[in-house]
Amino acid sequence: MKFKKIIYARKFDGNPKVSDFEVVEYHVADDLKDDEFLYEALYISCDPYLRLLAHTYVVGETSIPGYQLSKVTKSNNRKYPVGSILVLNVGWRSGGISNGSDVLYIRNDLPSNVPLSAGMGIFGMTGLTGYYGVDRVLRPKSGDTLLVSGAAGAIGSVVGQIGKILGCRCIGSCGSEEKIKFVKSIGYDDAFNYKTESVTEALQRLAPEGVDCYFDNVGGDFASQVLSHMKKRGRVAVCGAVSSYNATEPARALIMQPMMFLKSIVMEGFNIFDDIPPHADEMYAVLRKWAEEGKLKQYEYVTEGIESLPSTFIGMLQGKNLGKTVVKI
Amino acid sequence: MKFKKIIYARKFDGNPKVSDFEVVEYHVADDLKDDEFLYEALYISCDPYLRLLAHTYVVGETSIPGYQLSKVTKSNNRKYPVGSILVLNVGWRSGGISNGSDVLYIRNDLPSNVPLSAGMGIFGMTGLTGYYGVDRVLRPKSGDTLLVSGAAGAIGSVVGQIGKILGCRCIGSCGSEEKIKFVKSIGYDDAFNYKTESVTEALQRLAPEGVDCYFDNVGGDFASQVLSHMKKRGRVAVCGAVSSYNATEPARALIMQPMMFLKSIVMEGFNIFDDIPPHADEMYAVLRKWAEEGKLKQYEYVTEGIESLPSTFIGMLQGKNLGKTVVKI
Repeated sequence: MKFKKIIYARKFDGNPKVSDFEVVEYHVADDLKDDEFLYEALYISCDPYLRLLAHTYVVGETSIPGYQLSKVTKSNNRKYPVGSILVLNVGWRSGGISNGSDVLYIRNDLPSNVPLSAGMGIFGMTGLTGYYGVDRVLRPKSGDTLLVSGAAGAIGSVVGQIGKILGCRCIGSCGSEEKIKFVKSIGYDDAFNYKTESVTEALQRLAPEGVDCYFDNVGGDFASQVLSHMKKRGRVAVCGAVSSYNATEPARALIMQPMMFLKSIVMEGFNIFDDIPPHADEMYAVLRKWAEEGKLKQYEYVTEGIESLPSTFIGMLQGKNLGKTVVKI
Repeated sequence: MKFKKIIYARKFDGNPKVSDFEVVEYHVADDLKDDEFLYEALYISCDPYLRLLAHTYVVGETSIPGYQLSKVTKSNNRKYPVGSILVLNVGWRSGGISNGSDVLYIRNDLPSNVPLSAGMGIFGMTGLTGYYGVDRVLRPKSGDTLLVSGAAGAIGSVVGQIGKILGCRCIGSCGSEEKIKFVKSIGYDDAFNYKTESVTEALQRLAPEGVDCYFDNVGGDFASQVLSHMKKRGRVAVCGAVSSYNATEPARALIMQPMMFLKSIVMEGFNIFDDIPPHADEMYAVLRKWAEEGKLKQYEYVTEGIESLPSTFIGMLQGKNLGKTVVKI
């Protein structure tokens, strides 16, 4: 069998360029050993953290990592029979052979009212990360004001919906008028464009009594400035820092410590690798129920073909997407 | 009665100067009303946070705030009879009249093996802050590695002792060879001079397996760099940010978010005003017991006379003190 994968061909210098990637063909054996199965990619996930990890990539060698939703097309593994829908941690490749060690989640039982790609979106890394950050890190009370940066992105579009389900007043920050319209359409109570309005102006206007919970996807000065508008004992879920991922120098920002101790603020970092696995099944059951009830929806920006992964990734880092960015293979 | 107080006479520009302060005499009535008492200052506390608060001071008006240990010399208040030893929140003044609303702690029962000033040191704001930060915020397990910045300062000299009592391996950061010698003499297992050795070099040498808990008194790039040397799920108690207090521009530092989410680090700010009062009595009982057992000692840098407060304060901000800075009145 012949597949394609994307490798890291040239060192990123600031914003990645399409020429920094290379599409490579490769063959896999026709025979499967015991416990092996053949999978074919259905959707590949395009996530900002892949830019952050670039310092670990080896030019000319590293195959870009990441998650995909795949279908098992041939199998010697009873746990994953032909037809299984799996979330695999195998990177940007159109298919291959696995012995099961790459399997993150089985998603054979997706609700009928969501697109298949939701297996990797609201029911995959994105949904689990958003849910964990709100429910386990921020732990809002009903009526709390929840601020979300990157509100129109993959995680942000989930966090706003979950915040509303849990009874929060949700305020989103995003980078265009189109995105403001989008986040309001998916349930956010309010939103502002951080490119045309300062954090201070926006939060004095939208949260004059202060922010209880802040779900941080961007970091940088934005995050530092938010602290001045939080209530005492406010909580921050530190999920991403996309404002710094393309930086060519170590990123700097206004210090946060004085606001943290003056207001007894707690900031808690978390990630999909270490924090979520023990809770993944239990959280999936809740997300699935919400989706079946129509309360939680998959919003996505879909491109097609493995060759479009680099340009799709670059566009996402520039904020072109609304919701989760996926490439249909 | 005639007393003296210190007022904010000229706006600080970076490092405060002695000429930014003015000593002013004032009179208080000879007669006490119901519930009033007359107090005379014994020791006045000199703390870095008073520099941080300077943006709230009004030139020519604000009497410098802060804590003092006082003796009641005349009283119409049954709760505070003559001879009472109190910690009062009345600022830099040699005495005055209070109706009791300024009383933070009663310290009539100090152990016999500590100096009187300990009422405001290990048994006052300093001790309570250090104990709260270690025991309630960091919650170390026995055997944990505890890093403390500003280790030779008021809070740092308490935190290292408490860390040792709770079974931690304590590493101190400070700014001179004399201070390294000092902090090792009071119980720290190791110490380094951040002015002559980078955080990375020092922690690769002293904590190659990583830091479990970090008690942060300094903030800035130091704090950001520590995160790279913490273990997964490490905890940071955010107590102070002295590196920024004299800054003339809003202080900036390397961003912390990526290390926070990659390692699931929790940073928690806390302060003496909001967090400690409900626990103060219970914590004092423990600190008192430790002092009686000889496990916890007051280390202090003492100057004399209310007129010396400005120069003592300036010296402390420059790091001249070992332990708690107090002015004997």
